[in-house]
Amino acid sequence: MRLMEEKILAEGKVLPGDILKVGSFFNQQIDVELLRAVGEEITRLYRDCGVSKILTIEASGIAMAAAVGLSMGVPMVFAKKQRTSNVDGDVISTVVHSYTHDTDYNAVVSRDYLKKGDRVLIVDDFLARGCALRGLMELVKKAGAEIVGAAIGIEKGFQGGGDELRAKGIRIEALAIIDDMSGDRITFRRQN
Amino acid sequence: MRLMEEKILAEGKVLPGDILKVGSFFNQQIDVELLRAVGEEITRLYRDCGVSKILTIEASGIAMAAAVGLSMGVPMVFAKKQRTSNVDGDVISTVVHSYTHDTDYNAVVSRDYLKKGDRVLIVDDFLARGCALRGLMELVKKAGAEIVGAAIGIEKGFQGGGDELRAKGIRIEALAIIDDMSGDRITFRRQN
Repeated sequence: MRLMEEKILAEGKVLPGDILKVGSFFNQQIDVELLRAVGEEITRLYRDCGVSKILTIEASGIAMAAAVGLSMGVPMVFAKKQRTSNVDGDVISTVVHSYTHDTDYNAVVSRDYLKKGDRVLIVDDFLARGCALRGLMELVKKAGAEIVGAAIGIEKGFQGGGDELRAKGIRIEALAIIDDMSGDRITFRRQN
Repeated sequence: MRLMEEKILAEGKVLPGDILKVGSFFNQQIDVELLRAVGEEITRLYRDCGVSKILTIEASGIAMAAAVGLSMGVPMVFAKKQRTSNVDGDVISTVVHSYTHDTDYNAVVSRDYLKKGDRVLIVDDFLARGCALRGLMELVKKAGAEIVGAAIGIEKGFQGGGDELRAKGIRIEALAIIDDMSGDRITFRRQN
């Protein structure tokens, strides 16, 4: 999506350690015109797919997931991150590794909010190695629900997580895919 | 707002310890038609107030803040919760007590996203004793910005935090104020 790429070029900051900071417009402070356009574009990409639920994980995916839910008119639910391994019986949980914080956490969602028969679109602001996305996919499978695909704000294509999952047949749409940001400029993957 | 009160009566669950569970429609799974109505109602209540920024705190306030931002057309920003006391110099932070978890945390926001000249509407899903709201007000003051008021999804009026702040002259609009939920039924405060 051209608007997302333009915002990344204008306001994104590349920091050492393959970090792209987009907190000024996408995941701490949020430009609501961009957010609205993101919701509409994802609705367009997944129209006629029978999506019945949006699933994301706290915290920075929530605003994007809300915008997608508002645009599609389907409920959204977010998984919580819990450090403790004590999760009670009414929830579905899975362990996710965070490279950013070099730690593991439990992604947890109530069984009441993710059920057999749901057709789930997973939404997240970032996709890098794909740990969070794989965790959310695991939650959907454990719930007996169906994964329609994933919608990502910004994919760090050079870290490979998205392409690994695409190779397994998972539909992943990313509004901007960065193939290189190691030098002076950011190179986006060309998409149709 | 009648729709919010109806949803609370239909789907809310009162649990021991003055807990009201609304996870099925408002703060874990989110009914997007309610969310859209919430955004529009808050926009109506704070129209002509010159709001330039929405401020909330992760995680459960984010969806509501995004809906308000989308409806008003102003950027939203969320404060992060940090357990550590190490916060670097580019941020504004304050300590907030959580009665729910009986612990203190730091509410932290970048200085880049909350500035002198901003007219800030604070948004949160719940208001009980008012600890989170006072913390967010403190962040606005430390930034040198101005507080226009607060917009709350559900206020537990019987816990007093909202009325204490109203008595100090802070404008607080809550879409549903529960004055009693100790017995068999939930009693809402009548509002104009």
